[in-house]
Order: sequence, then C-alpha cells, then structure tokens
Amino acid sequence: MDLKKWIRDIPDFPVRGIIFRDITPLLKDPEAFREAINMMKEKVSDIKIDLLVAPEARGFIFAAALAYDMKKGFVPIRKPGKLPYKTVSIEYDLEYGKAELHMHEDAIRQGDKVLIVDDVLATGGTVSAIAKLVEEQGGVVAGILALAELSYLNPRTRIGNYRVETLIVY
Amino acid sequence: MDLKKWIRDIPDFPVRGIIFRDITPLLKDPEAFREAINMMKEKVSDIKIDLLVAPEARGFIFAAALAYDMKKGFVPIRKPGKLPYKTVSIEYDLEYGKAELHMHEDAIRQGDKVLIVDDVLATGGTVSAIAKLVEEQGGVVAGILALAELSYLNPRTRIGNYRVETLIVY
Repeated sequence: MDLKKWIRDIPDFPVRGIIFRDITPLLKDPEAFREAINMMKEKVSDIKIDLLVAPEARGFIFAAALAYDMKKGFVPIRKPGKLPYKTVSIEYDLEYGKAELHMHEDAIRQGDKVLIVDDVLATGGTVSAIAKLVEEQGGVVAGILALAELSYLNPRTRIGNYRVETLIVY
Repeated sequence: MDLKKWIRDIPDFPVRGIIFRDITPLLKDPEAFREAINMMKEKVSDIKIDLLVAPEARGFIFAAALAYDMKKGFVPIRKPGKLPYKTVSIEYDLEYGKAELHMHEDAIRQGDKVLIVDDVLATGGTVSAIAKLVEEQGGVVAGILALAELSYLNPRTRIGNYRVETLIVY
C-alpha cells in the first residue's frame, strides 16, 4: 500500500514557503490508517519497549493507537499549561519559531525503555527535545518512530545517534 | 477493573475552584488503558458507525485507539489555525472561557454515521458544538462516547437527545 497517496500537500502552511504534509486523508481512511499503524509497529518489533511518549496533538493519534495495540503505556508530552500535575520541561527551536514541551514529573521511571512517536519528522527538533527530556528523567530512548520524514530538512542529522524509523520519506 | 483508581484529582486546575480529572495515570498503565478502550468499544458495539471524530488533544488519544481497533476512519476536530486545509467551524462556550473548533470541510460525507469521542464530558459544551458541526456538514451523530462524565456539571442536559455513553461517572 502506497501510503503517500493519502497525504495531501498544502503549500504555505502554516507560514509562507513551507509545504505542509496533511495526514488527515490517511487518518480518515480506515484501511490506510490501520495499515500505517501496523507498518509502524512492524518497524520497531525487534525493540524492547516499556512505554510510548508523543507530543501533542498529532503525535497522540499514532502513539495512542500503537500503545493500545502493543499493550504499552502512553505518556503525553504537552505545551505549557496543559498538564495538570507537576511537570518537567524543555525549550527548543523548531521549523518555525520556538517551543516548550512539558511532561509529568512522575511519567517515567528510572530505566524505562521509551519509544518516541510523532506523525512527521521535520527538522527533528521536537523529538530531539523529547529525547533529552526522557533521558533527564532517567529513561532510555529505545527509538524514534514516525509516519513520515522530510529528508530535505535533515531531521536525522539533528536527531543524531538514536534509532529512527519512518514509513514515508519526502 | 475500577478505572477510577487510575484517575487523579487535581484541585484548582486550570483555574481556581475546578477539580481537574487527570487521566494520565490511566494512559500510562498498559492494562488500564487497554481495558478502557475495550470497555468504550463495548458500549457502542450495537451502533452502526462510519467514522470517529474527536477534539484535540486528549480526545485524539481515545478516538485514535478506538478507530484503529474498530477499523474506522478518524477525523480530528481542532482549534483555530491548526488544520491546514479549508475548514468549517463553530464557536461555543465552555466550562472556563470561550472556544472555536474547526474541521476540514471535506471530512464528512452526506449521511456518514459519526461517533463523537472525548476523554471527559464536563459541561458537554464541546461535544454539543461538535454534534452541530457534524450535522451542518450532513453527517448523522450516531452517539457520543467518553471515558468519564462530570455529572455535577450536567453534561447530559446540555447534550440533549443524543445517545451518550461513558464508563466513569463523577
């Protein structure tokens, strides 16, 4: 199944000069969405994983379906002011602007093997920040898994030595 | 399984006087999360459904896992400026403040049977607004499904005649 045909290019979103890869047609198609989740799961089937983490909001979609199917826990990574309990946080640069991500301070136990999940790897800034946050809390980054990557933005360079798995390369 | 024991009460969040029901302990526990999804699915097993819709961000978690498992499509409902393609929108009042929700204009086809999913029904304002948006686009609201409801805020009164299913009542 060529999953790319369910991804729609939107020029100049969210800002001029950016081509946004719109995954909503894929989500809406039951077979394409299911196939994407199954293929993502397959990509990390050899890795020992304790829990999945993902940034809001699109990352939640893939991580929740994967966590359910893989029988793992899910930890949401959120923007400031969204998580109700005590949090730890990290600030970082992204493709357009700056961002800060929070995680509950009790979300990860020492030595937890953590799979970081997102929809699309652009510059890799978000998942790199999450990897740092996970490690600061004593977790071990087992891998980074995304539906797609924008290779022309060189996310793997920024991400560095972590194992990265994606289904679709632009 | 008593799912309530995985939900944590956070007083005065996001504003003074509100008790926030924090579902992140449930999400983090593989058995509790899986059981919650399975029980939610069971609640609507007699309903004919074409697709699931959910508001960002916590609604995505439950709707994505359910859509995957039920082999249905998923449509995200988002805050202004988040969806890249042409959208339709609705404004409404919520427990604390005002909100506006958007959906892609091609997300729903005439006659689609739509299950609205969220984590917690508070006043019912969000799901009521989504129901209106779905119907304005020619969809049929097949039901409203959530993990929990805050009965002291009377969500069912505001929601009216739609079928509402939840697992946990506060």
